[in-house]
Amino acid sequence: MSRRVHVLNGPNLNLLGQREPHLYGSRTLADVEALCQAAAARHGFDLEFRQTNREYEMIDWIQAARKDAGLVINPAGFSHFSAPVLDALKMCEGPVVEVHISNIHKRTVEADWRGHSIMSAGVTGVIAGLGVQGYVLALDYLALALAGEA
Amino acid sequence: MSRRVHVLNGPNLNLLGQREPHLYGSRTLADVEALCQAAAARHGFDLEFRQTNREYEMIDWIQAARKDAGLVINPAGFSHFSAPVLDALKMCEGPVVEVHISNIHKRTVEADWRGHSIMSAGVTGVIAGLGVQGYVLALDYLALALAGEA
Amino acid sequence: MSRRVHVLNGPNLNLLGQREPHLYGSRTLADVEALCQAAAARHGFDLEFRQTNREYEMIDWIQAARKDAGLVINPAGFSHFSAPVLDALKMCEGPVVEVHISNIHKRTVEADWRGHSIMSAGVTGVIAGLGVQGYVLALDYLALALAGEA
Amino acid sequence: MSRRVHVLNGPNLNLLGQREPHLYGSRTLADVEALCQAAAARHGFDLEFRQTNREYEMIDWIQAARKDAGLVINPAGFSHFSAPVLDALKMCEGPVVEVHISNIHKRTVEADWRGHSIMSAGVTGVIAGLGVQGYVLALDYLALALAGEA
Amino acid sequence: MSRRVHVLNGPNLNLLGQREPHLYGSRTLADVEALCQAAAARHGFDLEFRQTNREYEMIDWIQAARKDAGLVINPAGFSHFSAPVLDALKMCEGPVVEVHISNIHKRTVEADWRGHSIMSAGVTGVIAGLGVQGYVLALDYLALALAGEA
Amino acid sequence: MSRRVHVLNGPNLNLLGQREPHLYGSRTLADVEALCQAAAARHGFDLEFRQTNREYEMIDWIQAARKDAGLVINPAGFSHFSAPVLDALKMCEGPVVEVHISNIHKRTVEADWRGHSIMSAGVTGVIAGLGVQGYVLALDYLALALAGEA
Amino acid sequence: MSRRVHVLNGPNLNLLGQREPHLYGSRTLADVEALCQAAAARHGFDLEFRQTNREYEMIDWIQAARKDAGLVINPAGFSHFSAPVLDALKMCEGPVVEVHISNIHKRTVEADWRGHSIMSAGVTGVIAGLGVQGYVLALDYLALALAGEA
Amino acid sequence: MSRRVHVLNGPNLNLLGQREPHLYGSRTLADVEALCQAAAARHGFDLEFRQTNREYEMIDWIQAARKDAGLVINPAGFSHFSAPVLDALKMCEGPVVEVHISNIHKRTVEADWRGHSIMSAGVTGVIAGLGVQGYVLALDYLALALAGEA
Amino acid sequence: MSRRVHVLNGPNLNLLGQREPHLYGSRTLADVEALCQAAAARHGFDLEFRQTNREYEMIDWIQAARKDAGLVINPAGFSHFSAPVLDALKMCEGPVVEVHISNIHKRTVEADWRGHSIMSAGVTGVIAGLGVQGYVLALDYLALALAGEA
Amino acid sequence: MSRRVHVLNGPNLNLLGQREPHLYGSRTLADVEALCQAAAARHGFDLEFRQTNREYEMIDWIQAARKDAGLVINPAGFSHFSAPVLDALKMCEGPVVEVHISNIHKRTVEADWRGHSIMSAGVTGVIAGLGVQGYVLALDYLALALAGEA
Amino acid sequence: MSRRVHVLNGPNLNLLGQREPHLYGSRTLADVEALCQAAAARHGFDLEFRQTNREYEMIDWIQAARKDAGLVINPAGFSHFSAPVLDALKMCEGPVVEVHISNIHKRTVEADWRGHSIMSAGVTGVIAGLGVQGYVLALDYLALALAGEA
Amino acid sequence: MSRRVHVLNGPNLNLLGQREPHLYGSRTLADVEALCQAAAARHGFDLEFRQTNREYEMIDWIQAARKDAGLVINPAGFSHFSAPVLDALKMCEGPVVEVHISNIHKRTVEADWRGHSIMSAGVTGVIAGLGVQGYVLALDYLALALAGEA
Repeated sequence: MSRRVHVLNGPNLNLLGQREPHLYGSRTLADVEALCQAAAARHGFDLEFRQTNREYEMIDWIQAARKDAGLVINPAGFSHFSAPVLDALKMCEGPVVEVHISNIHKRTVEADWRGHSIMSAGVTGVIAGLGVQGYVLALDYLALALAGEA
Repeated sequence: MSRRVHVLNGPNLNLLGQREPHLYGSRTLADVEALCQAAAARHGFDLEFRQTNREYEMIDWIQAARKDAGLVINPAGFSHFSAPVLDALKMCEGPVVEVHISNIHKRTVEADWRGHSIMSAGVTGVIAGLGVQGYVLALDYLALALAGEA
Repeated sequence: MSRRVHVLNGPNLNLLGQREPHLYGSRTLADVEALCQAAAARHGFDLEFRQTNREYEMIDWIQAARKDAGLVINPAGFSHFSAPVLDALKMCEGPVVEVHISNIHKRTVEADWRGHSIMSAGVTGVIAGLGVQGYVLALDYLALALAGEA
Repeated sequence: MSRRVHVLNGPNLNLLGQREPHLYGSRTLADVEALCQAAAARHGFDLEFRQTNREYEMIDWIQAARKDAGLVINPAGFSHFSAPVLDALKMCEGPVVEVHISNIHKRTVEADWRGHSIMSAGVTGVIAGLGVQGYVLALDYLALALAGEA
Repeated sequence: MSRRVHVLNGPNLNLLGQREPHLYGSRTLADVEALCQAAAARHGFDLEFRQTNREYEMIDWIQAARKDAGLVINPAGFSHFSAPVLDALKMCEGPVVEVHISNIHKRTVEADWRGHSIMSAGVTGVIAGLGVQGYVLALDYLALALAGEA
Repeated sequence: MSRRVHVLNGPNLNLLGQREPHLYGSRTLADVEALCQAAAARHGFDLEFRQTNREYEMIDWIQAARKDAGLVINPAGFSHFSAPVLDALKMCEGPVVEVHISNIHKRTVEADWRGHSIMSAGVTGVIAGLGVQGYVLALDYLALALAGEA
Repeated sequence: MSRRVHVLNGPNLNLLGQREPHLYGSRTLADVEALCQAAAARHGFDLEFRQTNREYEMIDWIQAARKDAGLVINPAGFSHFSAPVLDALKMCEGPVVEVHISNIHKRTVEADWRGHSIMSAGVTGVIAGLGVQGYVLALDYLALALAGEA
Repeated sequence: MSRRVHVLNGPNLNLLGQREPHLYGSRTLADVEALCQAAAARHGFDLEFRQTNREYEMIDWIQAARKDAGLVINPAGFSHFSAPVLDALKMCEGPVVEVHISNIHKRTVEADWRGHSIMSAGVTGVIAGLGVQGYVLALDYLALALAGEA
Repeated sequence: MSRRVHVLNGPNLNLLGQREPHLYGSRTLADVEALCQAAAARHGFDLEFRQTNREYEMIDWIQAARKDAGLVINPAGFSHFSAPVLDALKMCEGPVVEVHISNIHKRTVEADWRGHSIMSAGVTGVIAGLGVQGYVLALDYLALALAGEA
Repeated sequence: MSRRVHVLNGPNLNLLGQREPHLYGSRTLADVEALCQAAAARHGFDLEFRQTNREYEMIDWIQAARKDAGLVINPAGFSHFSAPVLDALKMCEGPVVEVHISNIHKRTVEADWRGHSIMSAGVTGVIAGLGVQGYVLALDYLALALAGEA
Repeated sequence: MSRRVHVLNGPNLNLLGQREPHLYGSRTLADVEALCQAAAARHGFDLEFRQTNREYEMIDWIQAARKDAGLVINPAGFSHFSAPVLDALKMCEGPVVEVHISNIHKRTVEADWRGHSIMSAGVTGVIAGLGVQGYVLALDYLALALAGEA
Repeated sequence: MSRRVHVLNGPNLNLLGQREPHLYGSRTLADVEALCQAAAARHGFDLEFRQTNREYEMIDWIQAARKDAGLVINPAGFSHFSAPVLDALKMCEGPVVEVHISNIHKRTVEADWRGHSIMSAGVTGVIAGLGVQGYVLALDYLALALAGEA
């Protein structure tokens, strides 16, 4: 059985660490990738870690990954209005975990739509507000799920 | 530094495993406690695992725990309208992780209020939809946070 | 087959007859119990009639009753925001009838939430506005349902 | 004192038993009439049982019945937007019971307006979700009300 | 040029005088017709005064009247949800005055929809709350409009 | 018994005839006053006809008029948000008619608040969309009301 | 297998061609029937083409047609609030196509409810804004569906 | 005439002084009680001062107090969704003053429901945002009311 | 330190005692001033007590008072939509207490906006529903606040 | 006159046939293209049939096509929030038909935004729920429109 | 052709520089006038610069200016609910620019109505958030517009 | 200090001058660039002027520009739902001015979302409705801001 999993990152996450650090912390996306690769090694995953500012690229990647073992996505700015990304996620056969570094539920102060991700109704589960470790926990979940323990 | 952590479970979770198993699965709360105690052992936590149908008891427990190392809560039916539980959570000094076994964001079909927890804006982060393993991941997060890695 | 049925009354109904009699009439809860016991006798029911101001007690009673023949509940002030009571009701295996002495649908003048019970989507059916006889009719329904005539 | 009561049925109920039986059951309107006539006989009522797809006919029947002993109405598809039927009901001098075979409060999934009847604020009380026995219970209520016991 | 005008009355107005007299007063529809015929005589109008509980009849009458000199309508219970009556009114070539005996804008207490008539956006103007004299004033307006003074 | 009546005009009506004539027509406020004085003469009224852009002046005038025979008001731009003018109107002892030259119910296209006057719930009745003759009809109504014919 | 299909037209469509031609065009309902009969001939359909201003007649026709091969309906003014027509449509066993001559989605400017048909959730599909040819296309669809090609 | 009055405090107020002191200040509930007892002494009141995290206890206390001279309540977290507490308050025969230490109307930033207490429509009056002195002022009001000066 | 305080009254309060006495009581504004001057004497305040129907005058007075010791305002009809009065209040350096004689939270029956004052988010605190004694209590609060006891 | 027409398909339609077949059926996009080319041949159209997951490509194609004979678009996931695609469609000079394979109006159960396409107010007409034949009917409409028969 | 232009300032702007300087900066209205007069000199404008707390004065000034070359308005507290000022602005024949010193769109945190000006739909254009230079840019725009370059 | 500034144009602006000229005027984007380059020359700016239909390209450009002197953006169709563009804008260190050629606040007639840009809460300020000169004024503002005069 495939051990290929994906961690896909949405727009502006290429600047993680520089971008609003009071919200997103100071660790960079390279730091996150290192954390994820370590977790993947621990779980025997073949991990593809990618980031894009392009909605279509995100869609293409999800489509290509849809029969693989599992998927972790931080949809970032696509979370709120990108129906095509949601439609792609709904085609995935394995578990899908949506990760947000910040607790989006606290962010309705900025705008109502900030507190809600339309992705959430199309994924297996959501981890929000646990910082960059949210990615690691999501991969841990995939391992448990593939082992039939979730 | 204290290693005392709490896993608090809200109303009707005493019947986990029997209650709407298509939503919540067949594992019982005793199973969940076993998973949590194993995780606690792994992390060197002194874990208090409890369940109550009583809002006041939940408040009392949170108040008593508010200076301890961390707290995991599955507020269950208190999630949507129990402002006193939220007010108690806001007093906690350590990290607080809210866990839902099912993906509540998929449940707006039943009623709008089902898809939203008022607790979420008062906690560190939220894990939803990852089944009973959500508890374990929440404890893993507490360990990371206490180690300064989150 | 069990003939055990329950009539459960929510908060402030202990003062029925004294409380806003223009809305709820002058009969007391003892009067209601007498009506219900008479009906139970007529139907060969083993009837448990109780009242509580305690949400957790209501939850516990419903949980304990969930495999019995049927349940009648006047959730009173729990009707509008008590998600845990609703969650407990959804576990009942027999028919559940929600009773309101007053016609709650006329009461949106006081507040929008007065005209709507969140319980209603989790029960078999609802009787509202038929005064204390609503209880008797609910028991009559249970008898018909148990006889396979509903 | 008049013992004349009316059971009025709204649009598409002529096809009861054939129409969405998972919602409305398999008994026909003739079956319902038989149940009602039996109840009427038990209570000494002179019962008029009718069905119409015509809003005006419903209005005319209610107007004609407005000084009679009591009225039971299943407004069916008129429930949601037929203000003239509601206006007619408000002229009735005796008790009026609104009956729905299905539990309309569960039907907001189909559309928001499905879960709410504008009639409800203009009637004595409502019975919903108790199947065709809802009619019988409504007649039982009329008997109690006329006897001064409601 | 035609002097043919119409006064059309909607559902339940046949019982004017008996129906909720605290809202609608004690004068009957025959009284209203007498007032209108007197006004018509004063203005040299050929007046057709009619009432119906039938939506289709109202539509047919409006269609037939659509090229006549003017039209006064009290849509009564059709005011709030009867789109076909509105569509018919929009075809009228002469002035159309909507009349309500009671001040509907005061009636949001009963229900939000009570305070608003969907007809209003399709007519020349509206007179509400001036009792049965609203009809007479509407006919006076038609006379002024036909004389080019409005 | 007093025959003193008032016609009070709100802001920007001093420019009637010049202001958005496609909505308000080409007749000036002086023309309206002439029409009103003619009607007043016909009814034996002692008519005070005034216009102001000042909310406080409108309030003062209404307070001063509150025991007089009747009042006609075109609140113009005060219609939508001027709670103090509404509060003053509610103190009037005689009949109060609110007049709008245009049909405000057609004007929700511009903004939702355009279609609704908060004054309406505090007056006897409303005439909208009948152009400047609306004033005359309002005075005719006052005459009928004072004669006990309304 | 039955080739009997129905084209049912709602209120005010009897005046098609005269009614708001900027919205609905200048072709009459007779023209539409000719187009439909030609299409029916092409497809070997036995076509019943009817129009009514009567809601009950529409319901009766749909009930009678519910086991026939297919149905096309332009609900016109019934689209927005006529729950009984929707309830009847839901009983049809063959495909049902809802047709609107104008693009109703453009008409929220007039009123919010204009842009939405409650029928749409109860039919197979919808064609809107394609003028009178929408009827022909709907019949073409029925032919494809009956041939198993849709 | 009874001089017995009650000051009842809702959930989490046992931690007043420690809980979010930027919102609630640093005085403890014991300090508040001292202020209240001093005021009670000044007014000759027999004062019962209590706090609970238990909704049912609050209900029981209000029921027991309902015929006493007056009641002051800080419902705290019960303010927003606890219908049973509101129902109990509505049974009180003497004046009831609702007190909030912070100005809840400023707190819609946190969540919409924070700015509004459902209790308010069931009490004599409300004091919010005047800190712990709000309690004293409430007791002063009770004294004035009992003296017939309010 | 300044002991100059202000009590400012909004529109229509000049008629207090005559205006809707079932809501506002029978005491006049002169009575209120006497109560306030007595309280001011008790507290050693130099009290300016004023009323206006003029929004600009209210703004000017608040601006002039903004560096004085404290301010009490009954904004009356300005409460709901007068943003400039709110903006002026936000400039005050001392405590500001908003007073309403009636309990505005009970008045949503009249209109939704009646139950809410936009001022409330810009003031120190609010007293509503305690009648004319609300003014006195507000002055008592100013004295406590100036003494550093609030 | 140009006979060049376009059929443009939005995101995830490249997986048609595999993607949620209970909603979208089992035919692939190649099947749809074959159907469309056959229809194009029948009508003498020069047909460009394309699919993209890229919003900008869709915009570019629409811009390039804006002076051609006609356009059919299945915006898929762009339907709900892609304002730039709508803005491009509004520049098209020929008829534009929006096609949805499933009946989007039935899909509000998933999420409110699912039931509504913002494109619809910017196109000639809409066909929804008629499966892949919706494309063919849209091309048939273009042929009729170009022939002046629509 | 007239070179007379107006800069009109709404309530509380007389205290600019002192009022919430974190929002509005420290420059006074005299500073703003100096900037504007310098710009006017540069453009050959005859500039009238005024401020008022009086709604009626604002209306009067706009009416008087309505045939002049152009108008700049900072409606300040009138922005949100002052329909009469909007109505006056709609009569202006030349360009009208609405200026806000702060970015009002960021201010929905304070209250929803803070983020929106009802004036905006009645003016040529809006400049918000560019500080006091917004006035100068508005005058620059008027110069361009009068030169036919806008 | 850097004098590098950017003017970024969103989707469909490549067709400015041809696209809905009644809304956007007849000047092309090349005309706008010429105006902007002239202004840049006047201010000594090194100006990058670009347009794209690609959301990702807009994001990339903003990211690359985020440390430059200033940025002007006409987000066009991205204004309403493109959260990633907003997130990128929030990272800019210099002033950002959002420009709309048309007055978007007038466009709620088309759709509610047309009147509102989600960008506005993330930028320094907004210029809307001042045609293509809005770009020039935005650049003038950047010059003032960089000079410390804004």
